[in-house]
Amino acid sequence: MSGNHFAAWMEAIQQRTEIALGAILPEASIAPQRLHEAMRYAVLGGGKRVRPLLVHAAGQLAGAAPARLDRLACAVELIHAYSLVHDDLPCMDDDVLRRGKPTVHVEYDEATALLVGDALQALAFQAIAEDRVSDNAAVQLEMVTLLARASGSRGMAGGQAIDLGAVGKQLTREELEFMHIHKTGALIRASVLLGAQAGAPLAPEALARLDRYGKLVGLLFQVVDDILDAQADTATLGKTAGKDAEHNKPTYVTLLGLSEARTLADVLLADARDAIASFGPAAARLDELASFIVHRRF
Amino acid sequence: MSGNHFAAWMEAIQQRTEIALGAILPEASIAPQRLHEAMRYAVLGGGKRVRPLLVHAAGQLAGAAPARLDRLACAVELIHAYSLVHDDLPCMDDDVLRRGKPTVHVEYDEATALLVGDALQALAFQAIAEDRVSDNAAVQLEMVTLLARASGSRGMAGGQAIDLGAVGKQLTREELEFMHIHKTGALIRASVLLGAQAGAPLAPEALARLDRYGKLVGLLFQVVDDILDAQADTATLGKTAGKDAEHNKPTYVTLLGLSEARTLADVLLADARDAIASFGPAAARLDELASFIVHRRF
Repeated sequence: MSGNHFAAWMEAIQQRTEIALGAILPEASIAPQRLHEAMRYAVLGGGKRVRPLLVHAAGQLAGAAPARLDRLACAVELIHAYSLVHDDLPCMDDDVLRRGKPTVHVEYDEATALLVGDALQALAFQAIAEDRVSDNAAVQLEMVTLLARASGSRGMAGGQAIDLGAVGKQLTREELEFMHIHKTGALIRASVLLGAQAGAPLAPEALARLDRYGKLVGLLFQVVDDILDAQADTATLGKTAGKDAEHNKPTYVTLLGLSEARTLADVLLADARDAIASFGPAAARLDELASFIVHRRF
Repeated sequence: MSGNHFAAWMEAIQQRTEIALGAILPEASIAPQRLHEAMRYAVLGGGKRVRPLLVHAAGQLAGAAPARLDRLACAVELIHAYSLVHDDLPCMDDDVLRRGKPTVHVEYDEATALLVGDALQALAFQAIAEDRVSDNAAVQLEMVTLLARASGSRGMAGGQAIDLGAVGKQLTREELEFMHIHKTGALIRASVLLGAQAGAPLAPEALARLDRYGKLVGLLFQVVDDILDAQADTATLGKTAGKDAEHNKPTYVTLLGLSEARTLADVLLADARDAIASFGPAAARLDELASFIVHRRF
């Protein structure tokens, strides 16, 4: 439970996630080679792997087998990776830098980046359906449905559509929150629930507490992202900094100011920790992860 | 089994598919409204619904419940629809007309078209996982996996990547076939197998015959598509005609000539009918569908 302990755990999960992703992505030697090479470029060798960390932390709480959590971690990370590739395209955010490397459409080309995203989404559903991640096949079908809902028009993709419509507009805090609950929040929330569902069945009340934690952490993640984007330079961030302001996109910082955004992050962190407090030491990793998300520097 | 009979059956399946798609797509009144409106625009009110027809024809052979086949028909049609939306984008085929209407990025905008495709793919997996389409949940997970594989980098998306790489190149017939087996064939084949898996379990040998039928019909579909593209004018086709030649894309017509391409279609049709002949009258719809695919005019 100490800080060092947590850092070692986090690194171990990041490493095993990298290995699992490397195994599930087709080798670049398999046709179509260029597409497979670009898919590996988009997914491997970078990223904080926040969603896989949440899958594993929630899965540990529910006593899930780590190999199953690896599959789920891959599924959510593949969805996340596809969304970044498409989000970086010229018709969306038009970004050239991601995780310190040229974005996929810059390194390859736009058509390839489009297909990389499409194929990564299909691979995510293959990852969650192909091998057993629950003792109960009916539960596993619910997990597929959960991932589909979190990714679709009433989840992540819907959040990006709301984001598109918000450029240059003055949003209320409620509207901003509605956007982020979809855009970033839905997949983060799904990560927590999927990890939990891979283990022994939890009482509905326990799942509800985890869901509350997931919702709060999703918002927390976005508030901190906005703070970092407003503060950091491009080198530290590994992606182009200050893009939101430049694109006239509403953020928590533009809406609340830096100081109040920081206060909001503190409140959300306290609420998220509170939501899982009654699990006791079993929820230690979830607790530490919430703190990590606030105190990260990139 | 008469022609009229078949035409009525086909129209009935097309109508119930339209209704099922309309029900599974979120209403345009639900936020994000513009995205949902564009998703409905992309999917509803057009298309031959070849893949849903194959789902139902194969499902009838296996005695599957029509309501289950509707879910599966939606799943494959949503994947098909998303692929058309992305395929029409400026960075891909850059097409302005589809099913006699402006393409999604023309009617809306590129970013919306990108998200429409992404959200339709997620909805396809929701459609196949959310409600029971098999008595056996483990079989249903196999069906999800089948759809994911058929859609991904070693299926449809991979075929499109091969297509991209083929522009301006002289392909051998084997290379052209490899491309189409992925690009069009994988989802058509999956449609047949998914329909069959929704019914009573079939012997592996029977599934293998259906798979052979699906593979042949997939190729047949593409050969006829190439013939129609070379012959038709835009008004008849409902999409921009002659694009393949204009884009210097290899087709069966450019490779074999029109007359030999027609002969190939006849051979493929005979082989496809032969593959399912031993099912007898139970396979009548599949037989008629193969003929319809050859003799269609659009």
